[in-house]
Amino acid sequence: MPHIPHLEAIIDPIANDLTSGAAEIALRAITVFQTVLTESQNLKPSEVKENMALAAKAIVNAQPAMAPLFHLGNQVLLAIDKAQTVEEIQSASASALSEFDLRLCKSADKIADHVYKLIPPGEMVFAYSFSTTVVSSLLHARSKGKFFRAVCTESRPSMEGRKLATMLADGGLEVLHTFDSAMGLILPSCRVAFMGADSVGQPGIVNKVGSWLLSLACKELNIPLYVLCGTEKFVLGEQVFEFERHERAGGEVWVDSPKGVRVLNRQFELIPFSQVAGVVTEFGILGEADIDKHIGTMEVHEALKLETSAF
Amino acid sequence: MPHIPHLEAIIDPIANDLTSGAAEIALRAITVFQTVLTESQNLKPSEVKENMALAAKAIVNAQPAMAPLFHLGNQVLLAIDKAQTVEEIQSASASALSEFDLRLCKSADKIADHVYKLIPPGEMVFAYSFSTTVVSSLLHARSKGKFFRAVCTESRPSMEGRKLATMLADGGLEVLHTFDSAMGLILPSCRVAFMGADSVGQPGIVNKVGSWLLSLACKELNIPLYVLCGTEKFVLGEQVFEFERHERAGGEVWVDSPKGVRVLNRQFELIPFSQVAGVVTEFGILGEADIDKHIGTMEVHEALKLETSAF
Repeated sequence: MPHIPHLEAIIDPIANDLTSGAAEIALRAITVFQTVLTESQNLKPSEVKENMALAAKAIVNAQPAMAPLFHLGNQVLLAIDKAQTVEEIQSASASALSEFDLRLCKSADKIADHVYKLIPPGEMVFAYSFSTTVVSSLLHARSKGKFFRAVCTESRPSMEGRKLATMLADGGLEVLHTFDSAMGLILPSCRVAFMGADSVGQPGIVNKVGSWLLSLACKELNIPLYVLCGTEKFVLGEQVFEFERHERAGGEVWVDSPKGVRVLNRQFELIPFSQVAGVVTEFGILGEADIDKHIGTMEVHEALKLETSAF
Repeated sequence: MPHIPHLEAIIDPIANDLTSGAAEIALRAITVFQTVLTESQNLKPSEVKENMALAAKAIVNAQPAMAPLFHLGNQVLLAIDKAQTVEEIQSASASALSEFDLRLCKSADKIADHVYKLIPPGEMVFAYSFSTTVVSSLLHARSKGKFFRAVCTESRPSMEGRKLATMLADGGLEVLHTFDSAMGLILPSCRVAFMGADSVGQPGIVNKVGSWLLSLACKELNIPLYVLCGTEKFVLGEQVFEFERHERAGGEVWVDSPKGVRVLNRQFELIPFSQVAGVVTEFGILGEADIDKHIGTMEVHEALKLETSAF
């Protein structure tokens, strides 16, 4: 029976982080695997492998909508599968973790290069929710000398849109901010819109609630809406709906709601591929067919396959 | 030079009421005219008329999006136009005010009868922002024995959707509540949607911000969206855009926004007629042509005409 001391305490900060993007949280999850490895010195190789699988599953369950957490665990488990000794496991894990880290950084750089070309100079650019990929892309464009203004909304109930506004303003962009339902007032002044993603796979993109309304408004107003995310967000179709497991307490939306009122607090929703202009990845702007092709090559470790089919 | 003591103090509660519907605020504005009349005992008839015009303009300016405030003032000014003595002014005003009060109540009753037929039994019904007409219609249907569930969102930043949820729950309805951007998660379970209006005239309906996104979502999901309002919300085309004067402090949205971030706080927006299934009035469900016809018969007092053309 695998066992990791204080697993819950290590995972909780990931489960309760409502304002960070998926790529950002994945970078933090790397330290969870490092902790598990450090505490595995006196175990048998099979026990270490079991603990790593246990950690991978716990991380995936903490944020079931966030594909990079799945891929991080999957890469590590595939990497240590054939290791014979604890040292081999540690070495293979360390390589997989740093490869993943590097992949995220490289993806972000390449995406920023593509986004640079999509920003019309002197215009207003809409950005929704919080995504490190969106932030780094917009700040990259600004630092390369492109002048534009950014518009964002608060993203109730977690208000991660304020974090976005603050980071963009800190980076030298002029920012216009309003509440989510006022999108319709400000979008007509924008020329392009960007959002991140938590996962991407048939039949669409999973992102923070409100993204579907944004996509409708952009279509109505003929504003191209691009999804910025590395292929570490791509998942098999069976995993796309995992985000529906992520329902939070209604009290986070309305602390003292009266009797007779049930408060719904879901964080993610699905936006069909047909609603967006394209998915900007490290390989360029991909459409549905390219995404399907990429997903077709994905290999999933047994431990994570079983976890998925249990739901 | 007309002068009303404490005018600002009398008007401020109307200007700063962000959670009441337009019909509700109009009922309260009646007491402003009553106060002005009470304080006019020792004035000349022409001074009383000037003061009534001043009060009417101040009320309209306090909430430029809310048509019933315009009509209330307009009815009173038209009624006192030919009065010769202070007594005649007082008598004509009192009649006009009580007629307007009665008209609002009768409208609400008739609208409720029409709405009863629009609610599919046993289904979920969406309601947006806060409107006394919507509340009275839904509670009327419930009290007549129709069983259904109500769904509403909070309506940032003033949160008048919570007031709606509370009143519907108090009236015996089962209520499901969430934040505004989560409309897309809950609307697919609804069979019909209702909203109030602040004013109605070419080219559409003015209502609380978020109504346009709601109308897009309803269209996409094939859910009929009805606007519930008496004809006291109808205005001439030149008045429809008066709502754009109503911009409030950004601090109401984000108290401590950082340097470089400008916070936009507008309360109203325009929804084109083509986006809704119909406008439910005391005369039944009206389309664009019926509305134009009704507006064509409207008479506007000189004092309010001038005020309008000044902007």
